[in-house]
Order: sequence, then C-alpha cells, then structure tokens
Amino acid sequence: MPEQQKLKFLSEYLPFWSQITEDQKRLIENSAVARSFGKGELLLSGPDDCVGMLLVTSGQLRVYIVSDGGKEITLYRLFERDICILSASCMMKNINFDIYVQAEKDSGIILVPTSVYNRLNKTSLPVSDYTNELMSSRFSDVMWIMEQVLFTSFDKRLAHFLIEQSSVDATDNLEITHDAIARHLGTAREVVTRMLKYFQSEGMVSLSRGGITILDRTKLEKLIS
Amino acid sequence: MPEQQKLKFLSEYLPFWSQITEDQKRLIENSAVARSFGKGELLLSGPDDCVGMLLVTSGQLRVYIVSDGGKEITLYRLFERDICILSASCMMKNINFDIYVQAEKDSGIILVPTSVYNRLNKTSLPVSDYTNELMSSRFSDVMWIMEQVLFTSFDKRLAHFLIEQSSVDATDNLEITHDAIARHLGTAREVVTRMLKYFQSEGMVSLSRGGITILDRTKLEKLIS
Repeated sequence: MPEQQKLKFLSEYLPFWSQITEDQKRLIENSAVARSFGKGELLLSGPDDCVGMLLVTSGQLRVYIVSDGGKEITLYRLFERDICILSASCMMKNINFDIYVQAEKDSGIILVPTSVYNRLNKTSLPVSDYTNELMSSRFSDVMWIMEQVLFTSFDKRLAHFLIEQSSVDATDNLEITHDAIARHLGTAREVVTRMLKYFQSEGMVSLSRGGITILDRTKLEKLIS
Repeated sequence: MPEQQKLKFLSEYLPFWSQITEDQKRLIENSAVARSFGKGELLLSGPDDCVGMLLVTSGQLRVYIVSDGGKEITLYRLFERDICILSASCMMKNINFDIYVQAEKDSGIILVPTSVYNRLNKTSLPVSDYTNELMSSRFSDVMWIMEQVLFTSFDKRLAHFLIEQSSVDATDNLEITHDAIARHLGTAREVVTRMLKYFQSEGMVSLSRGGITILDRTKLEKLIS
C-alpha cells in the first residue's frame, strides 16, 4: 500500500486522529504497517500473539476464542473501518484470555504495533478515552453472546445466526456447513443438523448439499422476537 | 460515616487519588456519599439503575446478570477495597447490558455519582487509564466465566464453585441450598442435586439439610485440574 494511501486510512479511520499531536501522528505513521491476508488465513492465533491494534481497510475478519478441546465461539466480526485492540491485549495487564482472528474474506489491515499504541494510550486522553469506548463496546458484545448462550434456547440462537449470516452475505442462499455453524455457536454438529431439519419441516429453510436456503424469513424472525 | 473517615477511605482506596488535582479531589469528596446495606439487600437492580462508582468499605457484594425468565449468573464478587464501575455503566455509551448488585453480607460502600466519575474520566488521564484497567479486568473475568460455561463440563464447574465458596466463607461446612448454587451457575436445581449426589457417592462431600460439607478437598481439586 502506498504511504499516501496508508496516511489517508489512518486519518480517516482513527476516531482520535484530529485530537492527537503532530508528534503522535508521526509516531503512528512511521510505525504502522499495511498487510493483506487471504480468505481463511489466521492473523492472530491465541497465546502469546499480541501484534498490536488492527484497523480493517477491506474484507472481513472473525474474532473468536478456542477451548482446549478445539471448540470455538465467535465473539464478533470486523468489517472495513473497524478497529480491534484485543489483538494488543498484552498491553492491558488484566486481560488474560486468548483470542484468535481469522480472515473470512480476502482482507487488508493496517497494524499499529502494541508498543506504539500502548505509549499513546498512556499519554493521550483522547486515545485512552477511545480505548475505554472500544473496550466497553466489545465487553458488551461478549455479554450479549453470553446471555444468548446461557439464557436463550438453541432454536432462537440458530435462527438469529441464519438471519445475521444472510444479511452479512447479502443472500438467502447460505453456503455454510452444519459443522461450521456448530463451531460458530459452540455446539455439536448433530445439534445443528437436528434443529435445521426441524426448521426445514416447518418450511423456514430448505437444506441441500453444502447449503441452506432461507424460505420464510418472517417465520424465522418470529422465533427470535 | 464521619467526613474524616470517608476522606481516609477515598484517599487510600482510590488508586488514582495521588495523581489527580486538588480540585478533582474536592469534587469527589463533596459528592461522595457513604451508605450501608443489610445482608440480602439490592444495591442495584438492572435496567435504568446507574448510580455511580461503588467503593466497598466493608462486607461483600455479588454482581450478576438476570435473564428475562429470572435465571441468574454471578459475574464476580466485590470485597473490601474493590471498586465497581459497571454500576455507572450509563456513562459508557457502548455498555448495554444490565447488572444487579446485592449485599451478600452487611456491607458499607462509598458512592461517587455517575456524573462526577464521568467528568473525571473525560478530563483526567490517570482516571481514564484506571477505568481502562478495571474494565479490562472485569471483561477478563466475564470471559473466564463464559469459557467455563461453554467449554467446561458441569462437574468441574461445580467442584470449582464449592472450593471457591469454602475459601470465601473460610469453612468446609457450606450453608447453601442447591437452589442457590443453581442460580449462581445458571442451571437447574435438579442438575446441581444430581451432581452433588454423585460427589457424595465418591466421598468428596457429605450432604445434609441445608448444607454441604467438603470431605475430600484434594479429590475435588483433582476434578478441576
């Protein structure tokens, strides 16, 4: 990525850009690196991976956690203009969970190294304030997921997942395996297949090899409300 | 609580006290209120309850969430010197989950109103930095619980709960009902009773009316590791 374009992204996408000093801007510019990742590639893989703040310039990333047994739960997704600081979590002494970040589409990011972000965070009130805002937003996302998992029955969670996935992909024909859905929702494939078959028998979806088609969105949405 | 004592608590327990200005200190002093709550009393009950920052001066508080159906999950506990800012969550625009806080013992707190804490947070880097630290610490606690719930089998969670409870109460004789444990762990009473009976058959605990006695701590701990 040309320097000129990198600077454009930084100045447009970093919400605190207009509130930091010229020196702080130069520090970010000089240390930030543009990177691209192919669909499926891992940007961050758990323990000891603490690269820095990620700014998404294109594509789509998935942030998730993984159990010892390899079970996954998606925490949230990042789209263009989104920023991730959990990828710099080692700078926050109290964060001790490991996150994974994977490209769900071909994606571009700009990376600001942890040491630089940390320095800004400790010296600039606008940056510290932004960190607070972003952290509380992610915290809230995760609380929502936890409430879903703990308090919501699986039919609602699956219906919600299908509707969300269809809006993210902008199609009613979802190309996703039962296994992948199970990983997203932290359950077993059999549980997903059983519920999808029930949805099919209710006329809400139709199932085919490697795909799910939403037939009755209204009925699916009713499940959630 | 006499003014003198309130000031002593504030200056000793607020980690950023030495780093804020005299004006900011006075602002806190003049707005902070000491309160006491009896065992079982609710300090904060969900939606629209946003009183401010809580500083625990004595006793023990439980912070939890509640589902529409009344199911509860304990997020964490607060002891003397602990601080809670989720009780001022309305100042953080991205937080949109509701928390409940209940006194588990007779407890004393000092309350700094939301408007005051918010003003400090927006004008003082040490306060903003502390908010970050505390938020990431609570975030981490909640992630731990989520991982427990999602990834850990129920025998381990129950064993962990019994050991923790015994260390909090400093006794092997726990006076707690199966129903209360179920509420703490977000499950049904029957599930708790069944697992406790299994623990009893394995000689790890003995059950009596209204109580559980830990007989073999080593064996319980082995379950967790």
